[in-house]
Amino acid sequence: MAAKTSSSTKIQTNSRRTAADVGFPTGLHIQIDRSGALGIRAQLEAALREAIQQSRLQPGATLPPSRTLAIELGIARSVVVEAYGQLAAEGYLEAFQGSGTRVRRRDVRTPSRAPALTQPAMNMAFTTGLPDPAFFPRKEWLRAYRAAVDESSATALGFPDPQGRVELRVALGDYLARVRSVRSSPEQVVICNGISQALMVVCRALHARGTERIAVEDPCFALHRRLIAACGMQPVSIPVDEHGLVISRVREARVDAVLVAPAHSYPSGAVLSPARRVELAEWATRQDALIVEDDYDAEFRFDRTPVGALQGLAPENVVYAGSVSKVLNPSLRLGWMVAPQRLVRDLIGAKLLYDMATESLGQLALAKFIEAGSLARHIRRVRPRYRARRDLLLLALAKRAPELKLLGAMAGLHLFLPLPNGVRERDVILAAKEDGLRVEGAARHWAEPASAPPAVLVGYGVLGEGTLDADVDALVSAIRGT
Amino acid sequence: MAAKTSSSTKIQTNSRRTAADVGFPTGLHIQIDRSGALGIRAQLEAALREAIQQSRLQPGATLPPSRTLAIELGIARSVVVEAYGQLAAEGYLEAFQGSGTRVRRRDVRTPSRAPALTQPAMNMAFTTGLPDPAFFPRKEWLRAYRAAVDESSATALGFPDPQGRVELRVALGDYLARVRSVRSSPEQVVICNGISQALMVVCRALHARGTERIAVEDPCFALHRRLIAACGMQPVSIPVDEHGLVISRVREARVDAVLVAPAHSYPSGAVLSPARRVELAEWATRQDALIVEDDYDAEFRFDRTPVGALQGLAPENVVYAGSVSKVLNPSLRLGWMVAPQRLVRDLIGAKLLYDMATESLGQLALAKFIEAGSLARHIRRVRPRYRARRDLLLLALAKRAPELKLLGAMAGLHLFLPLPNGVRERDVILAAKEDGLRVEGAARHWAEPASAPPAVLVGYGVLGEGTLDADVDALVSAIRGT
Repeated sequence: MAAKTSSSTKIQTNSRRTAADVGFPTGLHIQIDRSGALGIRAQLEAALREAIQQSRLQPGATLPPSRTLAIELGIARSVVVEAYGQLAAEGYLEAFQGSGTRVRRRDVRTPSRAPALTQPAMNMAFTTGLPDPAFFPRKEWLRAYRAAVDESSATALGFPDPQGRVELRVALGDYLARVRSVRSSPEQVVICNGISQALMVVCRALHARGTERIAVEDPCFALHRRLIAACGMQPVSIPVDEHGLVISRVREARVDAVLVAPAHSYPSGAVLSPARRVELAEWATRQDALIVEDDYDAEFRFDRTPVGALQGLAPENVVYAGSVSKVLNPSLRLGWMVAPQRLVRDLIGAKLLYDMATESLGQLALAKFIEAGSLARHIRRVRPRYRARRDLLLLALAKRAPELKLLGAMAGLHLFLPLPNGVRERDVILAAKEDGLRVEGAARHWAEPASAPPAVLVGYGVLGEGTLDADVDALVSAIRGT
Repeated sequence: MAAKTSSSTKIQTNSRRTAADVGFPTGLHIQIDRSGALGIRAQLEAALREAIQQSRLQPGATLPPSRTLAIELGIARSVVVEAYGQLAAEGYLEAFQGSGTRVRRRDVRTPSRAPALTQPAMNMAFTTGLPDPAFFPRKEWLRAYRAAVDESSATALGFPDPQGRVELRVALGDYLARVRSVRSSPEQVVICNGISQALMVVCRALHARGTERIAVEDPCFALHRRLIAACGMQPVSIPVDEHGLVISRVREARVDAVLVAPAHSYPSGAVLSPARRVELAEWATRQDALIVEDDYDAEFRFDRTPVGALQGLAPENVVYAGSVSKVLNPSLRLGWMVAPQRLVRDLIGAKLLYDMATESLGQLALAKFIEAGSLARHIRRVRPRYRARRDLLLLALAKRAPELKLLGAMAGLHLFLPLPNGVRERDVILAAKEDGLRVEGAARHWAEPASAPPAVLVGYGVLGEGTLDADVDALVSAIRGT
């Protein structure tokens, strides 16, 4: 029985008789496996299709008459007829009255050779903006996801809502009010795939209303400047100093909107001062301008309680944007906006264009994760661990290179390290790379990278297990050029 | 002990002495819960912040001196000082040398009233394009997701790859070759959030290369026409007849690209004929034009084996787009493109702009789901059930209204129902809606809805449990106007 199911018939159509009779080119094999895993007709179709695709059966070639091939293969003639019909419907074959079935002639290109898949093997230490994958609360996340799947009703698995699942919007409203002092109702929340998509959505909605210029911090996260331009808007760079974005320059810039990360400007690490927070909120209110608040890592504030969101000060003029990318993991692609009610419909419309909606089961899982207190618990658990890593890194750097200045250590998951006079960013990055270290240059985050003060960014979300000393040695050597 | 942890101090600051002393307005209550769930300082901050946000503490109001409030609340003075400091940092309060702490004056708008959340309660029967949520293979999906979370390595939870997880790209390559005759290598696959995002990604990439006009079927899925316009391109409408898209008109249209659903045009249900498939592939090759193949529901072909993808005929000139939206569920937002190698880099760049990447865990789950054979098994399981539903619906309609013509029944999850002479689409939709039935009009899918032949779309992916007869009665009555 075992022998029978694995038996197969192998037809070499380049045998003299068959080749002559049916016009098959040299080297075509059709092999039928009778074990039943795949139907005989499907096998025959697949073999012929592949032969045509790989040009082993050339355009114009005549196929054997169905009766002949059926006998060769020891299968029913009707199966061959059906297979020919299927391939004719797909455009591979054509039937001619009286002259049989041929491979259709067509003038198409064959695929070019693809480059090989590569998997870069880098040390993840010092990567900026990445929380430690090892901290991801797999068990608790899985529990929440399972509950989401178990309870998912017909509506949860119907067409997804472009605004996002109401369960998550409700859970976020409570959470953000408690943790970030954000004022919202579930109607004001729009779920999206992270903060960068939130920015795309906001920019599309603003652009459609005639907004052309949006102020951005200089430096700011470089991708954001590209996203703004991709929406047809102009990013207007405004300097950041030690008190954060310089609001007086915003006022002069004749913009209708401003993108800012008040809790922790990227990459400089500056925190917007209390006076400037109020100044910015008042400017927006007077001008009826919009503040897009990028609250990407405010949960990780180490030396004091996180400063509440700017949104709470001016909810009618702020679109607040946050995500789980830093507190949980960026691979989840779950983020949110809290917007003034008058903008919500336009934001939903823009989100619909980009991808209809964010996937539902992850949203439902996050809602359960938040409601179970797992998110708050997770943050309480990892915040001291990140602080400890930061302290270790600061200590190691101070010991080896006391001459280096480090900025932005109050919050987030990275340090801003201005380079000593005469040291070029590019040289440091390349030297670090030779030691397998991924160190990010800061220049690209400036509007004018060429004139940016040389600096590198050193992430501490992920530090090598037991390799901190060696990694810091390598970093210091890269900076000193030794 | 229980009594102790739940004890609380309630300070009514509108008591005469306190109100006079501290300048708090009438009605402000600060309540400290000592059970320890939330820190005392956090509670105090939250109470003050909320009072300011809700204007119970007006701008300019002086807060009690920290010593006074500490005594009132029975807490340490340092806690009050810290809370005031925190709220000052957030911009809610300001401290004046010698004159205490006041609520910051600021000129901001208060939120407008939001509309109530509504949950429409419609019968889901006849909804077009929706597979039955009850068929979703929860147990198998969850098993795949759990395996994905358990095995997710550091890289799987690192920054997501804009091209998509290699595990899924490999699994899809095998699956699509087997089931859809798509020719690809994993380097040619780009993961996205469904077919509509694929179209946005392709259009952005094409537009950046200077493509201005893309041919679309008339009728075609209405959203796609909007997406194309949103990318700054012009959709050029080409008629669809009973053999599918009229290729001779494509040739005349001077376009560089064409969007087509060869296996099952939406909403007409037309299948592109073998001759036209070849004609289209040859046109694209000669013109070096691009075919975007929308393969949204080809797995559901009922009267014969699904026709293989057009991509197999001309892989160098086709971007093939598919998703799990019809075969599994649209709420998963998982789709893919298979593109000629020369376009892949641009597609990845466009995908990065839209949302960095598709979420990873769902991708890994789908890879496992495919590799375990669960997807093929699921399709084998549900296809006969959808066919049975279609047959039931056809039978019920034929019995009650033999005069009605029905098109597009060979495949997919919906029928195209041209309305009898003189019957208006709008009237039918409204009459059906009064019976709680969601029937979709076809007009909006035409380039010129006003001159579209009146028709409605009747989905059978979801049919009411035991209500088919009543639903069909209601539909027929709506059409007959009785």
